Formats: sequence, C-alpha cells, structure tokens
Amino acid sequence: ANLIMRPDDANIVGNVHGGIILKMIEEAGCIVSTRHCNTQEGDRCLAVLARVEKTEFLSPMFIGEVAHVTADITYTSTHSLEVQVKVVAENILTGAKKLSNKAALWYVPCSLKNVDKIMEVPPIKYASAEQEEEGRKRYDAQKLERLETKARIEEVVPPQPNSEQHTVGFSQSSLIHLVGPSDCTLHDYVHGGVTMKLMDEVAGIVAARHCNTNIVTASVDAINFHRKIKKGCVLTVTGRLTFVSNKSMEIEVIVDATSLVEAEKGKYRAVSAFFTFISLDKGNKPLPVPVLKIEGEDEQRRFEEGNARYLQRKAKRMAAQGRPQ
Amino acid sequence: ANLIMRPDDANIVGNVHGGIILKMIEEAGCIVSTRHCNTQEGDRCLAVLARVEKTEFLSPMFIGEVAHVTADITYTSTHSLEVQVKVVAENILTGAKKLSNKAALWYVPCSLKNVDKIMEVPPIKYASAEQEEEGRKRYDAQKLERLETKARIEEVVPPQPNSEQHTVGFSQSSLIHLVGPSDCTLHDYVHGGVTMKLMDEVAGIVAARHCNTNIVTASVDAINFHRKIKKGCVLTVTGRLTFVSNKSMEIEVIVDATSLVEAEKGKYRAVSAFFTFISLDKGNKPLPVPVLKIEGEDEQRRFEEGNARYLQRKAKRMAAQGRPQ
Amino acid sequence: ANLIMRPDDANIVGNVHGGIILKMIEEAGCIVSTRHCNTQEGDRCLAVLARVEKTEFLSPMFIGEVAHVTADITYTSTHSLEVQVKVVAENILTGAKKLSNKAALWYVPCSLKNVDKIMEVPPIKYASAEQEEEGRKRYDAQKLERLETKARIEEVVPPQPNSEQHTVGFSQSSLIHLVGPSDCTLHDYVHGGVTMKLMDEVAGIVAARHCNTNIVTASVDAINFHRKIKKGCVLTVTGRLTFVSNKSMEIEVIVDATSLVEAEKGKYRAVSAFFTFISLDKGNKPLPVPVLKIEGEDEQRRFEEGNARYLQRKAKRMAAQGRPQ
Repeated sequence: ANLIMRPDDANIVGNVHGGIILKMIEEAGCIVSTRHCNTQEGDRCLAVLARVEKTEFLSPMFIGEVAHVTADITYTSTHSLEVQVKVVAENILTGAKKLSNKAALWYVPCSLKNVDKIMEVPPIKYASAEQEEEGRKRYDAQKLERLETKARIEEVVPPQPNSEQHTVGFSQSSLIHLVGPSDCTLHDYVHGGVTMKLMDEVAGIVAARHCNTNIVTASVDAINFHRKIKKGCVLTVTGRLTFVSNKSMEIEVIVDATSLVEAEKGKYRAVSAFFTFISLDKGNKPLPVPVLKIEGEDEQRRFEEGNARYLQRKAKRMAAQGRPQ
Repeated sequence: ANLIMRPDDANIVGNVHGGIILKMIEEAGCIVSTRHCNTQEGDRCLAVLARVEKTEFLSPMFIGEVAHVTADITYTSTHSLEVQVKVVAENILTGAKKLSNKAALWYVPCSLKNVDKIMEVPPIKYASAEQEEEGRKRYDAQKLERLETKARIEEVVPPQPNSEQHTVGFSQSSLIHLVGPSDCTLHDYVHGGVTMKLMDEVAGIVAARHCNTNIVTASVDAINFHRKIKKGCVLTVTGRLTFVSNKSMEIEVIVDATSLVEAEKGKYRAVSAFFTFISLDKGNKPLPVPVLKIEGEDEQRRFEEGNARYLQRKAKRMAAQGRPQ
Repeated sequence: ANLIMRPDDANIVGNVHGGIILKMIEEAGCIVSTRHCNTQEGDRCLAVLARVEKTEFLSPMFIGEVAHVTADITYTSTHSLEVQVKVVAENILTGAKKLSNKAALWYVPCSLKNVDKIMEVPPIKYASAEQEEEGRKRYDAQKLERLETKARIEEVVPPQPNSEQHTVGFSQSSLIHLVGPSDCTLHDYVHGGVTMKLMDEVAGIVAARHCNTNIVTASVDAINFHRKIKKGCVLTVTGRLTFVSNKSMEIEVIVDATSLVEAEKGKYRAVSAFFTFISLDKGNKPLPVPVLKIEGEDEQRRFEEGNARYLQRKAKRMAAQGRPQ
C-alpha cells in the first residue's frame, strides 16, 4: 500500500504522528493475514490482532511523503500467524527513501459465523528449516510473555473513580482533543463548529452513561465564544450532569484550552454551555430518565439552578407555541 | 449545502449526532458572514463565531437522509452580524422533508492581517422598520447575556488537578473515544490499529505537556490485545509518565472499554503498553528532557521498573548493533 | 452543496486534489438522481453510478475557497439517466468566482429490495424536441463506448517494476484500500465518488514521481463502472504512465476489487480510466514534462495509443473553442 501523508496526520511542525503509522501497519497486517486464512475450506474468517511486538520508529516521516507498507507472513502456528511489516517513507519530490519502521504482529483467525470460534491457520512453506525454527522460537517467546502480561494486567487497579451509579461523578466524562489543521480557519483558529461537535460528543457520552439507552440532543442553550482557540492547542472538554427532569437531562460542558508550547500561561476557559438530552426507546419515543443522586452542596446548588433553567425553557416553549410565528 | 449523512455521523441506531448538525450550521454561517463582510474596501477578513443562540433539535435525522442547510444574514450591528440557519432533512427515497433545526449565530469580522483588529460590518437592508427593530432587540439581549456569562465563566474553579509542573500528575492525560463504524472490522470489533492510534495520541499529549517542545514517538513496547472491543463501546485511554532518562520519556498507556448499553458489567481493561517519546529541536535533533518529580511510593516503584526496562532496551539495542543482521 | 475546502483536501502548495472534486460531483449526482427515481410507485431505489463522461478541470481550486456544486437531470432513457454537474469555486474574501468543472454522469436505479433488479426511470420533460434529440445522441454514443471498453478492459496485463528514472516502471504506483462503512451507500456498495478519489490519488503519485514538481489533474477520460464494489472488499488501485506530451502526462489507472473472504473467486477488474496531469511552477504556470523512456513493445503500443487519444482530445478542444457554447 502507498499512502500520501496528510496535514491532519502530523503535528504542527510536520512530523507524522506515530499513531498514524501504527494504524497503517495494522491495516496491512490485517489484510494479508485475513486473505491467507481464507485460502482453505471451512467458515470464512477475519484475522484479529492479538499482539504487536516492540516497534522502533527509525526515522521521522513528514507531510507530503508517500508511505510504502509491505507485509509478509513469516510464521504460522495452528491457530495464529506472524506478519512482518516494513514501512518506507519516500519523498516523491527528491526521490529519497528511508526505512521508517519495522514491525511484527500476531493475528488469530475468528470465524465470521461465530466470533468466539478460532479457526485453523493454513501452514506456509519456509525457505529453510532454520527459518521455521527461528519462527517457532519467536512464537514460544511471545506466548510466554502474553501469559505473563495477562496476569499483570488484571491486578492493576483501575484508575477510574468508583462512584455509585446515577451520581454526578459516575457519568462525568472528559476528552482531550489535539487541534489539527482541518479543525482550523485560514486564520489558524479553531472553527466554532468543531468545538461544538466535541461538546456534543462529551455530553452524549455523559447522557448515555446515566441512562444506558439511545440518547439524542434535544437542545443547546446559548453558547458564548469568549476567546479564540489557536492551532496546536489541546482542548479538554468536560461534561457533567447538573439537572434531570422526568424525561430530560441537562449537561454542563466546559472547554479548556491549553497551549502545548507555551505551558501554563496559555491555559484558559474557552467555552461552556448547557446541553439537553433525551432518552429514546426503539420506536424513537421518549423514555423516563433515572433520578440523579445528588451529593454535597455544590451539586445541590447546580441542580436547583438547572431546575430554574428547565422551568424557564418550558415557559418559553409554551409561549412560543401560543403565539403565531 | 446538501450533504448525505454517513454511518460515521450517527450512533448505532442511526440517529445523526447533534454535533454533526451543529458543525454544518456553523460552516454555513461562517461562509455567509465572511462573504458579506468582504463586500467592502479595507482589510480582507474572516468571520469568527462569537455566540450561538439556544438551539432546538426539532426532529431526529437519520443516516442516508440529505441535510439541506440555508443561511441568511438577519441583523448587522457596527461590529457583529446575526445569521439565521435552517436545516431540513430530506428522505430522498420517500421524498419526505422535515425541519430538523433552526439556529441563530453571531459573528465578528477579524482582519486577516491582524487577528485582534475587529472590522466594521457592511449594513444590510431590512424589509421593514419592525424587522430592524426586532433585530436590535435580539442584539441588545444577547449583548447583555454575553457580559453576564463572561463574569460567571471566570469565577468557575478549573476542574483540572493543580499539580506542580514536571510531576506525574501534571502531565497525566486521558481521552474518551466513542467507537464508530469506521473504527470497526466487518465483525463489528475495533481494529487494533485504531486503538494503537488513540494510545499514541494520549502518550504524545503527556510527553508534550512534560516538555513543551516538539515530541515524536521513538518506540512502543510489545502490546497484547487480550480482549476484543465491540462497536458502541466507549474507550477511556489514560497516559502517565513512568520514567524519564536524559533524552527520553516512558509513558504507560492504559485502555479501558465500557459498554454504554450494558453498564457496569461491560467494563474491562482492554490493552496497556509502554511508549517511549523523545523531544526534538527545530533541526530534528534530540533535546534533554526535564527531570521527573516523583511523589509517593507507587510513583517511585514505577520509576524504578521503568528504569529497568530502559536499561534492558538499551542493552538489546547495543547487542543488535553489534551483531550482523 | 457549498463546502469550504480544508487543508486535507489539498496538496502541500494548497491546490485541491482533483479526486476531492470528483467525489463532490458524484455525491451531488447521486442525490439528484436517487430523488428523481423515487418519485414514482414501486420499489424504493438508489441511483448507482454507471459512467462518468470525460471531465476537464478548467481552473485549479485552493484551500479556503468555497465549492458550489449544482446538478441537473438532462436526459432519461428507460433504465438510466444523465446528470450534468457544474462546480464553481468562490473566493469568499475577494468575491471572485470561477468555473472549476463541468461533468456528465450516468446513473442506473437499483431496487433496495433486490440490488440486481434495475428499475424504470420516470421520464423528464424537455424544453424542446432538439434538446431531447441531443440527449438521445449522447445516450447512444456512451452506450456504444461502454460496450467497447468492456471488451478491452479484460486484456490488461500487470507490468514489471523497474528502477531507472523516467521509465514507466519507475513511477508506477499502487495503493490498497479496505472499503469501510463511510465509503458505502445504504446498499453497502462503494460510492462511485470514493473510487474516483482513490484513482486520482494514485495518478497524482505517478505524476509527481515522474516530474518531482507540483502536479494537478487537468482532465479525466470517460470512466465506466462495469461492476458494483461491495463493502468489505479490498481495492487495489494501480497507476502507470502511458503517454507524455510536451506539457502533459497521461496515466492509466486500473481498479481491481477482491473480496478478502471469498479469495480468488471474488477478484475482478472494477474500473479503469485515463487521467491527464500537468506540472506547475510556483506561479501555477505549466512546466515542461520529462520525456518518458519507453521499454518493450507493450509500452510502445500503449504510448502510441496514448498519443492518438492526446491528438483526439486536442482536436475536440479546438472544435469546442471554435464553436459558440
């Protein structure tokens, strides 16, 4: 596969993000191993990633370069296969090529009929007995390490707050977003629409966590954009429930912007707004919303303020319906 | 603008996200107002969003429908203008149309030569004196509310941890990602490459917060994918510094998956891995990394474990360079 | 549709990729023709792209400009319809508008219940008998050409890679794309516009490799879509130089679709087309193109065929300029 690196794939100075390269590598590995596993009789299957070996980024890639990804199957066990992937970056203006990355991935074929059924892998032919033997060693080594990690990973204490369901803390969510070129105007300032989309995204996750149902945006209160947000900033978007009526949820969403380059001086509250969400059943009819468990004075105060806004919105809606438009 | 709504614009049951609609509305508003403000002599300018009035989502929009967005300038003050936007959803199979959204946005024209210079807005003509008077009332009302919100927003206590710079807590970051259709295989399970891309994104933000420089991924330790992640999950990806050498940072990244629909039962640790980042100067040469301030026994233990991994990686690299490949 | 062109839509110097424009054109054509074909009783249906007539890129478009796309149905046969699409680029800062593109596309309505069932097209009314007669001539001409291409398309043999600069092998490129949900219609078939965008991308890489300069799409010869491409397929898009004139390059682009799951049986030639690119200097003026080094009889034959097409295009352009439009 050859792919041109786009502005959104890179940071402000033009280095392609490692994550973009990892994603290309995995896509190539998935294609090669799925194709191989379907060259036999039996259920059709998809190769699912089980492990990536340690990966070095040998030289940085830049916007405008073409990435060449090649993938080869280098070992097969009964139920898994190893794919080695190489990424070469080519500057198509100068013709210069450099090795950017070498990776090894392990895949397991899962039946399309039953995802939990692992299929057998058709064996490959090796150039020599040594080659097969080396593959087997890599297979044994990774198997051992997998088991060790599995034990370790379970014991790690989860970093989330273990709040009780239906409290404010339980559904509170935040996301960070690194502002990219496509988020920006010609001025290099973030489009207001991009910020609103992120705010709606966080509010939707808060609402879904509270209800565990299909939720949709019902309305957004006025949003003021007090300060412009510059390219290269990180946005932290936080949402928390403030008020819940019988059939709606009010979520306050706060956007903070931090410049990654100028550190603390650049940190400020960029936007905040109230989103109202409703919960829907399968026929798109509103469902009752679980009662919000309030903890502490601040949450109580915010709940009462939310209730006041709710009554005001209701009154306005009534007035609007009564008067011809 | 007419746009077909795609699977990626909607949730699992096919409702288009409110955020996608808000983004379309703002794009239409920005085009109309930028065009208007450039119909005069003087600096070329871009219209920057200052405020969105309360927005109602009147009826849900679905994948495959066509969204029609129309925008009109309805009021101009000396330095701002109001744009009213209407969104109609059309089912092109049945021909049915429904009003999905009505919004009002306020823009301010900023000079392209000097972003802090606000330009004058060319006045529009009104159909009647009443129309102009109503516009002026909306203008005065929003101006008052803007000032009130500005006062309120400043006093809100920032929700971020107020950690000291160069501590683990200072740079720790997490993001949430709602798994969409394009993140998934035909099985409806998340592509491993998508998860790795998110992990690299968080690790990069942690590294940039610690250094305030241009940072790039140098390597990733082996990653094991113990459990498949299903469509409709929310991923919480958290990164924290574990170890810092003279010229590199090790960041542990943890991925937790939660099903939004099945609540607590569905929460599990999906993946974790160690990323190594380096800091670069403008000539792409490695820079020294600020020392990590360790607090408490856990951080000390993790630092020592990180140091051991660092020495091991170094030894392996030396061995690899010494032996023919 | 009105759309702001974003950084990701363009190359490093800010020219919007021809593929982005082709994709917008096809989306507009699909909306207009699907809407029209559903204005009757019977199964609901989707319009599927069957052919794009030769398309000229009349003037380059830049990041930040707004693209206006309008589409009209200009001819209907029993089972197909012709849509003419116009793209105007507007600089919203200066108010300048320029015609960027004119295209004609042929669609066939497929039943949503049974994709292989082709529906009847409701007839349109013509302004005059001449208009209808001209439409019928265009219909007959394209039908004939479709049949001819179908015969020719099967015999193409994949050529050999080669490393000497300015040979065909040197610049030959291919990319692999795994079809995802957002690439598809409600039928789960790939949007024609998505395929055209990928074809333009590969052709652009071939052209840049040959010239090492900034290159842009000048025109695309008629494209026939012989078979629908289903979700879950892998597309292999290959481009190679066939002919080079003093100031232009002709690149043949071939699209093969393979089902990952059904292996060899599922492999077929989906589309092929000729793209013409030109090389531009910093002031957007055409540059001379390096001579193409021809190796072997096949390349020689293709070069001569390309030369014939080049002369034909030139003659047509002359004829069009001579006659009033």
